Amino acid sequence: MKRTLGVCYYPEHWPDETWAEDAARMAETGITWVRIGEFAWSRLEPSPGDLRFDWLDRAIETLGAAGLRVVLGTPTATPPRWMIDKHPDMLPVDGQGRVRGFGSRRHYDFSHAGYREESRRITRLLAERYGKNPHVAAWQTDNEYDCHDTTLSFSEAARRGFQDWLAQTYQSPDALNRAWGNVFWSMEYDDFSQIGLPNLTVTEANPAHWLAFRRYSSDMVVLFNKVQVDEIRKHSTAPILHNYMGRVTSFDHWKVGADLDIAAWDSYPIGFLSDRIENDAGRKLDFLRQGDPDNQAFHHDLYRAVGRGRWWVMEQQPGPVNWAPWNPAPLPGMARLWAWEAFAHGAECVSYFRWRQAPFAQEQMHAGLLRPDSAPAPALAEATQVARELAAMPEVEPGRAQVALVFDYESAWAWEVQPQGADFDAWRLAFAAYRACRRAGLNVDILPPDCADLSAYKLVLAPGLMRLSDPLRAALAAFKGIALIGPRTGTKTAELSIPVPLGPGLPDCDVTVALAESLPPGAKVKLSDGGRFLHWFEHLEGSATVHMSTKDGRPAIMGNDSLRYIAGWPDDDTFDHIIGYHCDVLDIPTCVLPDGLRVRDTATHRFVFNYAAKAQMWNGTRIPPAGVHWEPLA
Amino acid sequence: MKRTLGVCYYPEHWPDETWAEDAARMAETGITWVRIGEFAWSRLEPSPGDLRFDWLDRAIETLGAAGLRVVLGTPTATPPRWMIDKHPDMLPVDGQGRVRGFGSRRHYDFSHAGYREESRRITRLLAERYGKNPHVAAWQTDNEYDCHDTTLSFSEAARRGFQDWLAQTYQSPDALNRAWGNVFWSMEYDDFSQIGLPNLTVTEANPAHWLAFRRYSSDMVVLFNKVQVDEIRKHSTAPILHNYMGRVTSFDHWKVGADLDIAAWDSYPIGFLSDRIENDAGRKLDFLRQGDPDNQAFHHDLYRAVGRGRWWVMEQQPGPVNWAPWNPAPLPGMARLWAWEAFAHGAECVSYFRWRQAPFAQEQMHAGLLRPDSAPAPALAEATQVARELAAMPEVEPGRAQVALVFDYESAWAWEVQPQGADFDAWRLAFAAYRACRRAGLNVDILPPDCADLSAYKLVLAPGLMRLSDPLRAALAAFKGIALIGPRTGTKTAELSIPVPLGPGLPDCDVTVALAESLPPGAKVKLSDGGRFLHWFEHLEGSATVHMSTKDGRPAIMGNDSLRYIAGWPDDDTFDHIIGYHCDVLDIPTCVLPDGLRVRDTATHRFVFNYAAKAQMWNGTRIPPAGVHWEPLA
Amino acid sequence: MKRTLGVCYYPEHWPDETWAEDAARMAETGITWVRIGEFAWSRLEPSPGDLRFDWLDRAIETLGAAGLRVVLGTPTATPPRWMIDKHPDMLPVDGQGRVRGFGSRRHYDFSHAGYREESRRITRLLAERYGKNPHVAAWQTDNEYDCHDTTLSFSEAARRGFQDWLAQTYQSPDALNRAWGNVFWSMEYDDFSQIGLPNLTVTEANPAHWLAFRRYSSDMVVLFNKVQVDEIRKHSTAPILHNYMGRVTSFDHWKVGADLDIAAWDSYPIGFLSDRIENDAGRKLDFLRQGDPDNQAFHHDLYRAVGRGRWWVMEQQPGPVNWAPWNPAPLPGMARLWAWEAFAHGAECVSYFRWRQAPFAQEQMHAGLLRPDSAPAPALAEATQVARELAAMPEVEPGRAQVALVFDYESAWAWEVQPQGADFDAWRLAFAAYRACRRAGLNVDILPPDCADLSAYKLVLAPGLMRLSDPLRAALAAFKGIALIGPRTGTKTAELSIPVPLGPGLPDCDVTVALAESLPPGAKVKLSDGGRFLHWFEHLEGSATVHMSTKDGRPAIMGNDSLRYIAGWPDDDTFDHIIGYHCDVLDIPTCVLPDGLRVRDTATHRFVFNYAAKAQMWNGTRIPPAGVHWEPLA
Repeated sequence: MKRTLGVCYYPEHWPDETWAEDAARMAETGITWVRIGEFAWSRLEPSPGDLRFDWLDRAIETLGAAGLRVVLGTPTATPPRWMIDKHPDMLPVDGQGRVRGFGSRRHYDFSHAGYREESRRITRLLAERYGKNPHVAAWQTDNEYDCHDTTLSFSEAARRGFQDWLAQTYQSPDALNRAWGNVFWSMEYDDFSQIGLPNLTVTEANPAHWLAFRRYSSDMVVLFNKVQVDEIRKHSTAPILHNYMGRVTSFDHWKVGADLDIAAWDSYPIGFLSDRIENDAGRKLDFLRQGDPDNQAFHHDLYRAVGRGRWWVMEQQPGPVNWAPWNPAPLPGMARLWAWEAFAHGAECVSYFRWRQAPFAQEQMHAGLLRPDSAPAPALAEATQVARELAAMPEVEPGRAQVALVFDYESAWAWEVQPQGADFDAWRLAFAAYRACRRAGLNVDILPPDCADLSAYKLVLAPGLMRLSDPLRAALAAFKGIALIGPRTGTKTAELSIPVPLGPGLPDCDVTVALAESLPPGAKVKLSDGGRFLHWFEHLEGSATVHMSTKDGRPAIMGNDSLRYIAGWPDDDTFDHIIGYHCDVLDIPTCVLPDGLRVRDTATHRFVFNYAAKAQMWNGTRIPPAGVHWEPLA
Repeated sequence: MKRTLGVCYYPEHWPDETWAEDAARMAETGITWVRIGEFAWSRLEPSPGDLRFDWLDRAIETLGAAGLRVVLGTPTATPPRWMIDKHPDMLPVDGQGRVRGFGSRRHYDFSHAGYREESRRITRLLAERYGKNPHVAAWQTDNEYDCHDTTLSFSEAARRGFQDWLAQTYQSPDALNRAWGNVFWSMEYDDFSQIGLPNLTVTEANPAHWLAFRRYSSDMVVLFNKVQVDEIRKHSTAPILHNYMGRVTSFDHWKVGADLDIAAWDSYPIGFLSDRIENDAGRKLDFLRQGDPDNQAFHHDLYRAVGRGRWWVMEQQPGPVNWAPWNPAPLPGMARLWAWEAFAHGAECVSYFRWRQAPFAQEQMHAGLLRPDSAPAPALAEATQVARELAAMPEVEPGRAQVALVFDYESAWAWEVQPQGADFDAWRLAFAAYRACRRAGLNVDILPPDCADLSAYKLVLAPGLMRLSDPLRAALAAFKGIALIGPRTGTKTAELSIPVPLGPGLPDCDVTVALAESLPPGAKVKLSDGGRFLHWFEHLEGSATVHMSTKDGRPAIMGNDSLRYIAGWPDDDTFDHIIGYHCDVLDIPTCVLPDGLRVRDTATHRFVFNYAAKAQMWNGTRIPPAGVHWEPLA
Repeated sequence: MKRTLGVCYYPEHWPDETWAEDAARMAETGITWVRIGEFAWSRLEPSPGDLRFDWLDRAIETLGAAGLRVVLGTPTATPPRWMIDKHPDMLPVDGQGRVRGFGSRRHYDFSHAGYREESRRITRLLAERYGKNPHVAAWQTDNEYDCHDTTLSFSEAARRGFQDWLAQTYQSPDALNRAWGNVFWSMEYDDFSQIGLPNLTVTEANPAHWLAFRRYSSDMVVLFNKVQVDEIRKHSTAPILHNYMGRVTSFDHWKVGADLDIAAWDSYPIGFLSDRIENDAGRKLDFLRQGDPDNQAFHHDLYRAVGRGRWWVMEQQPGPVNWAPWNPAPLPGMARLWAWEAFAHGAECVSYFRWRQAPFAQEQMHAGLLRPDSAPAPALAEATQVARELAAMPEVEPGRAQVALVFDYESAWAWEVQPQGADFDAWRLAFAAYRACRRAGLNVDILPPDCADLSAYKLVLAPGLMRLSDPLRAALAAFKGIALIGPRTGTKTAELSIPVPLGPGLPDCDVTVALAESLPPGAKVKLSDGGRFLHWFEHLEGSATVHMSTKDGRPAIMGNDSLRYIAGWPDDDTFDHIIGYHCDVLDIPTCVLPDGLRVRDTATHRFVFNYAAKAQMWNGTRIPPAGVHWEPLA
């Protein structure tokens, strides 16, 4: 498949007369795709029912005439001001009970049925008008679900919706009381209408109460998205995508993704480094202008899976952004490196955000490919170079992986509800495992928690899954490689209680988590071989083989030939050792990469990326800072 | 007196058919007491007036049949959901004005008269039914007053109650205005109905306003407790206790305790270390699995005084808990050490929380003596050992102390209202003094602020008392030993204003606090002998003798032979020096203990406890980590 | 001009019979001015319309009889409790939507028209009664506008007032939409009544929305003040002042100042060091009892400009205060040093706060010249010494400055709204520039952003101005010295958008800010000469001369002979270098002062102040800690 570049464009921000020139420059840059429309509701419908699609017709025509293909976004992330008058109770409410008002974006509640119908209506109108438009070659639903923490809302609409969902899920208050263990602290309910939202209780609410609300809230995102997808499909055969975000776990992307054709995500490596990825302060400075060297790859692999193979970068950072605590400029070359890394992981399209920096409003300090005065910003030349390189490149097809990592959103909710140790975080644990694989130079596939077949892999990692799904348990039972399971995996029931018999309940493998400990920063459990666990440690029992021990003689890894339970959270060196050892056993080739140098194999090539601010050597080749190197696979 | 073990049990959490086996295992473990019932209201009265005591009858009978004695708790800490429909305004309100809703526990307002009557009613019903039950040998009122910061509520009920209390206390708005100094900033009131709660003012409210609200709020706890006590006493002669908490100062435990027969407290050494006791990070790691080596002892001594000699540990941590920021497991042996330390301080009973870990709801990660699957948790064997040792032990009677420490809840409120230095804290100051005594190997008695007789002691410490009560001032005037008073003691009137003449107003001792300074971290006042004050320093004047000076010549300790005022907050070494010097003067034997090794003398024995994670030597005897040693007193 | 001392006094706090003695002691101390009345509304009008001016008559008469001159304050910062019943919606609302209640001070909303009229009424009544009183020689409006962050209120009154202000400012919703760029995120409005306050939006509101609200809020302060000034002027010819605060930028002091005769400010050097001025922890300890050595001077120079030459210190810290996180006592001598420093900067009067420490209410721990028991506090002797020295002193006239610094409140709002880097702060940047001048021993004048004439200066600093006003741009065009402009200066339009062409738009100087970066702590941009930028760095383009470069070859300072744009935020050493270099070029004499030693030239003398806690040498003279030295100018 030929990989393409794209860009995000806001015709409504610029005089009509600039559109044609912009389109010509985009084409000249080598751009294929242009995403438009996703925030333009106030221009599409300035007052209720007053539809103004003419400008959008012209914009699409202008872009199409320049040979560009349009991704048309539904504008539902930004309901116009009049919508609030029509549905005053559609505004979301935060966990402190404060209404989140109009004046920015995402001012809607996923639970609000009235707004969901408005969203269906505008989507239907767009699909009817543009479903057969030859230039509209893809659709985007809404924009960045959960952005600004909007999955959860503590509104009246949410309360009523949650009660209905509970009634459907549990059928009777008694069943719910039993499932949640509400006999504890006399929390029993007689009627679903008595059940409030789990925020603002005197002390923490029942974890099962929270988990149910997290599931409900995720389901509302799935539903909101599906309503739009259903409308679009009635009128268009073009693929539909949504642009997900980085490190967002508040809704189940697997479920949203199941209704879409393509998964896309918005990749802001420098912004994420600043405020979303754990690194010590020194390492943050080392990668200040490059981003965390593994975070993009993780999301590439995750969304490749969410998209069942089809995925894009819908928004690629081109320069400084406006929204992180600090916003430095990328090292020269990074706008190219990030694009190539995405392609090496299988992206069909990398789309820069945005064409021209807006001189006004919230994102005025967010760079584009052009400056506000239309002069080229630094990334324009790099995008042009990528386009040129893509044109010269044989097809880039994703490589196979021998290693897989299971990632589960529900577990993220579970451990957020019940961290037990203040810094326990499901995503962070999965990412720690992923990083260790990356340091060993491995291709990794990410798998959903209900995957039923592991036969393509030699090594499977399944850390921090609250429970093992039936398909996954069956797949593990049949697995011929080695699965590294835990910590915490399988230690909870579906209702976030403790199973009896205790977990993890591995098939034909007698390991029991007898007791769990969380460890504050600075505390560690030393292993017999010099390694150590941080954050978390479980006391294991059972008749399975102890493969690794703590210094004071407790099991650290325990299991049989195929299934092995890790009793704690390995530090980086220990993770390296565990991954390296098991790859050796399984005959998976590894290498030891210096910090910042990362590799990814496509079907035909090994790509090498230098995230470091200094040159590094790879097999005798000097890779400059922000350098990209590729070589045929041996 | 024979000391006993107990356990907390929730028959409503388990099938009836397990009760008998549980009871048999408890008896086999050597347990005497079982506390039940304190969260079971929804099972005792599933809907208003629908009383279901049959299961409780059976549970008590089953436990009693196994030879166990029951502590029956009133279930008022967890009103059932229907109660909120009946009294919608009974929910507490936090300092930010947010209603604290149903869904966990303690969702009631101490000021709400309607709920107070409900609490009286259910208590009466229980007392009527079980007051003569031979197995019900003690009562517990409610559970952990103030848990989750529930003493203070900023509700309408509180506002009205506070206004009534003010009217009774001050009789006229003018008197209140004068007492509070409301001429300042034009804060004068014409009518009690104009007086709001002191939260959410533009800047801080008048300290006298806050102190009055703190007194009112404490009185509401006293009243709430007394209502229950009065009902129980009508029907039962069994002793009544309440299970207090650690480092809770929000209500006056002396006053609540005056209405009860026994003081009990809930001792979670590892949880408290994590988030309630000041220690530097390294020391927190040193005692990660043991708890602060002095904190339990402080509370043992405090509650022995609150209980006028009779006190229990109602809940003893047996393993990891769920509620601290991090929750490691105790070092093997600590569940035994903690129990023995309590007995050495005079506990009548040490009761582990809880029998079996609940697999569901908020405390599912809180260990018990049994695991959720009924297998023994590590603490079960330790409890069994303690029971065996107790059986073999001659009677353990509390030892006498030559040193006393005065502790006052009102002062804790005063300095919380008016810290003047951001880290000034009355409890912390008292604990700093207590710790110094512990490091010197001293038995300490804790005394209430109105104690009228000090003649049993040689050395009395009275740091941080906002004022000296008349009885205490008289006792000091008559005191033959040495009283170390200050810093801050006696520098306020009852209305938290500055007395004129200035404090401390010691009898026959001319010392005046001319000026007070608070010091940020890192700042210190050096003393002439190499010591130093941190946090706080007062400039003293007067004709009394200067016993110690600062390096630049100001008085550091000043007074006469018997009464000596300390001008600042000594650091640990300085406190050691001050305590050691005065013990030498007073001929009180001391020793110098290494960190973690602590002693307590009973009437007949010296007990030595090793809180350290490594073995330590005591008089030639090696005490292992978590070890307990006892030897007859010379 | 003869400089004078003053004191703040609260006759309503003390029995009438003490007034005469207090007045006599004030006179004896050498005090000229007494400020009274500013919090006494509840005593002037205990219930609506019940006026009680008799006591104030007597107080003024008593003070005047002792030869003292009265500054009479309007009592509007403390509306009495009955006012809230009359205007329940006058209470301000914080950014979280919580009403800020009665019980302290400043419980009024600047937007509330009803309270504004009450304020006019009480001012009129005072002016009518005392406008011709021979002892009332000056007036103070209200007290410390913005204290406790009260400039901004998010009330209904503010919302309505803001909508009116927007309608007047923009005339049509369309014009506003265009000005703010509301097409972005569909934020367009059809009607002014749709526009809410910018708080509590889902994510940040449009920066233009915020800036408009900041301008509106500042205008409300200006209006509130002007209403009082207008009333006073009808009846009195005495000068009118307001007592501003330190580091308050929430309203435009230039505009408030334009309506007043004298600018005054409340100088609490030790309190400000603790919580308002950036210094590393070690330096905070070095100046713990002295205050930041440049902060007072900065405000002296700022308010000298705001007062168009006439300015006072209305409240001078005399000892420990009550309101900072920690409150140590001043080093002996500082109460004198601070006064002399103010005089050297041109203060007409330095007035200590307060005469006698109140033993009650919120400020009871705030020292005065007398203790609560009327004994002298340490500062009394120092005040007496200053009075004696003033009497012996030839006239102290302010010296000229060759260096000026432009300071703009609107830019402070702009960068607070849109910091782009989490620690970017306009005041801090201006202060960094000012400090560098102080370290070089320079006199500095502070100028408003619309100053039209720079001809009095050789060197002008204009860092961080969001835009250049027309007068200032014209003055720069005509300027013969060197103006150091930037960073960030001129990079925004009046609506806080990005100008096209890009800024800074210097007259006849081709420099363009192509891109801006913010830098987290620890990150730096190295300069070719060893210096470095922190916090902020801009990529410059254009044909102007590069006067200084970064290590990697980008412009660091760029411009022509007269106008030079600084591309980043210099660290202290770099600022020293830049200031020193340009002073050398301009033939402005400088010196290099050790930390804590500071100089200020009057018209005739050089004053040297030692803020350090140790003695320091000045030209062979030993200046003791807290020492003041003066010598005739050469």
